[in-house]
Amino acid sequence: MNLTIIGLGLIGGSFGLSLKDSGLFDTIIGVDNNVKHQKLALELNLIDEILPLKKAIEQADMIILATPVNASEELLPKILTQLKPHQFIMDVGSIKSDIVKAVKTHPNRSKFIATHPMWGTEFSGPTAARKNELKNRKTIICNEQESNLIGLELVKKIYNYLNMEIIYMDAIEHDLHVAYISHISHITSFALANTVLEKEKNVKTIFDLASTGFESTVRLAKSNPKTWTPILIENKKNILVVLDELLRQLNLYKKCLQNDSEVDLNHLIHEANKIIKILK
Amino acid sequence: MNLTIIGLGLIGGSFGLSLKDSGLFDTIIGVDNNVKHQKLALELNLIDEILPLKKAIEQADMIILATPVNASEELLPKILTQLKPHQFIMDVGSIKSDIVKAVKTHPNRSKFIATHPMWGTEFSGPTAARKNELKNRKTIICNEQESNLIGLELVKKIYNYLNMEIIYMDAIEHDLHVAYISHISHITSFALANTVLEKEKNVKTIFDLASTGFESTVRLAKSNPKTWTPILIENKKNILVVLDELLRQLNLYKKCLQNDSEVDLNHLIHEANKIIKILK
Repeated sequence: MNLTIIGLGLIGGSFGLSLKDSGLFDTIIGVDNNVKHQKLALELNLIDEILPLKKAIEQADMIILATPVNASEELLPKILTQLKPHQFIMDVGSIKSDIVKAVKTHPNRSKFIATHPMWGTEFSGPTAARKNELKNRKTIICNEQESNLIGLELVKKIYNYLNMEIIYMDAIEHDLHVAYISHISHITSFALANTVLEKEKNVKTIFDLASTGFESTVRLAKSNPKTWTPILIENKKNILVVLDELLRQLNLYKKCLQNDSEVDLNHLIHEANKIIKILK
Repeated sequence: MNLTIIGLGLIGGSFGLSLKDSGLFDTIIGVDNNVKHQKLALELNLIDEILPLKKAIEQADMIILATPVNASEELLPKILTQLKPHQFIMDVGSIKSDIVKAVKTHPNRSKFIATHPMWGTEFSGPTAARKNELKNRKTIICNEQESNLIGLELVKKIYNYLNMEIIYMDAIEHDLHVAYISHISHITSFALANTVLEKEKNVKTIFDLASTGFESTVRLAKSNPKTWTPILIENKKNILVVLDELLRQLNLYKKCLQNDSEVDLNHLIHEANKIIKILK
C-alpha cells in the first residue's frame, strides 16, 4: 500500500517522517510544486520519492492533502474525480467548512475524509517537519457520516498509529471552535508583533528586553502568511465575532487604566486567570 | 555579610535560591507578611531564616526588595531612613519611574539601587522560585548616577555571580520600553483569555482543541493580579499609547477580513514576521 503526500511543508513533512517506520505503507510518495522543497524533502528523508502530481495520485492507495487550505479546496475536487475504487484521500487543513462544501455533491465525496490534527508550530517548509510531534495530540474528523467506512478505517489506522485521540465534530462547529481557540491567538500575536515593531523603533532594545513572556506571546507571529491568509479569510465570519469580543475586552483594560480602576483591573485579571483550570 | 530578601515570591525566592551557594553572603534572611509563604520559603530552602521586618533590616548588609511594586514604593522610603552607613538596598520591580521618584529627595537616596532583572514566569509565590532561571538573562540598572558606588559594586557582584548582563537605562526610558515589550504582552494575553472564556462556553472543547499555539499565547494570562494590577496602573501613561496602537493594528486585521483583502492581510502578516529577525 502506498501513501502520497501532497504538500511537503510543516504538516505534510511531519506526516511523512512520522509514518515512515509505521509499517502501514510500502512507499511514501511526495508531491510539491516547489523544487527546493522537493530536494529538501528527499534529503531530510521525509518521503521515499518525489513524483509529479498525476503519477503520485495514480500510485497512491491513500493521499494526504497538506497544501494551504485554499489550494486544497481547488485540488480536492479534481483529485477526487481521478480516484479509482480502492483509493482514498484525507486533508489535514485547519479549517473544514469550505473544503467539505467544495465536494459536497461530488460523486466521489465518500472517498474524502476531512481531518484536522491539532498540532503545528510557527515554522514552515520541509525543514519544519518533526518526527515525534504529532504523536499523542488530538485530531478532529469532520462530517464522518459523509465518508466511506473503509477510507475512514484507514484514516483511523494512521491516527491510531500516531496515538492521536480522534474527536468527531461537525465542520461548521469545528470552524467556530478553532476561531476561538487557534485563529484569534494568531491574529493577537501578529497584531502584537506589528505593534511592537511600529512603536519600538529601537530594535536593539527589543532584543535586549524581550524576556520569555514576550517571546511566548509573540511566537505565533512568525507563522507563514501563505498558510494563514487563506485560513483567516475563509473563517472570517467566525473570527470577526471573536475579534469584536477581543476588542471589547481590550477596551475594558483601557478603561481601567484611564480611570485608575484598580479593583476592576484586578477583577479582569482574576477572571483571565481562570484559563489555568482549563489548560491544566 | 548578610542578605535580607523582602517578599519571598517568584522573584525574591529565586534570588534566595540562586544566591545561596554563591559565597557572597553568610546568611540569607527572609521577610514575608504571609505566614504560609514564610513556612514554604523555609521548607523549600529559599532562605536560611525568617525574621520580622525590623530585625531583618538591622542584620542586613544588602537588602533585596521583592514585594509588588506598589508595596515597594511604600516600604522603600521607610527602610532607607533606618539604614546605617554600611547598608544598601536594591529593588527588583518591573517598573522604575515611580520608585525612583518616591525616594528622589530622600537623604539616603544613594543607598538605593533600582534594578529590573528580565525574567519571570506566569507563576507566583515561594513554590514558583527557581534556582537557575535568573542566570544568563539580562538585567537593568536604572539611574545608576543616583546610587552610591559601593552599593552599586555590591549589586554588580550579585548580578555578575548570576552571569546576568547589566544594561544601564534611565528609569523613564525603561518604563516606556517595558510597556512595549512586556506589559502589552500581558494585557494581550489577559484579554485573549477573557475573550475565549467569554465566547467559548464549552470548556471541554477548549481543553480538547487547545494546541500549543493557544497555550503559548495565553500563558501570561495565568499571571498574578496582585503583581500585575499595580504594574499596569503605574505604567498606564506608556501602556495606553501602546494599547491604542494594538487596537489600531487589530482593526487593520478586522478590515482585511471584512473586505476579503487577501493582499493586505498577507502584507500585515509578512510585516509581523519581521519579529523573527529581532528575536533570533
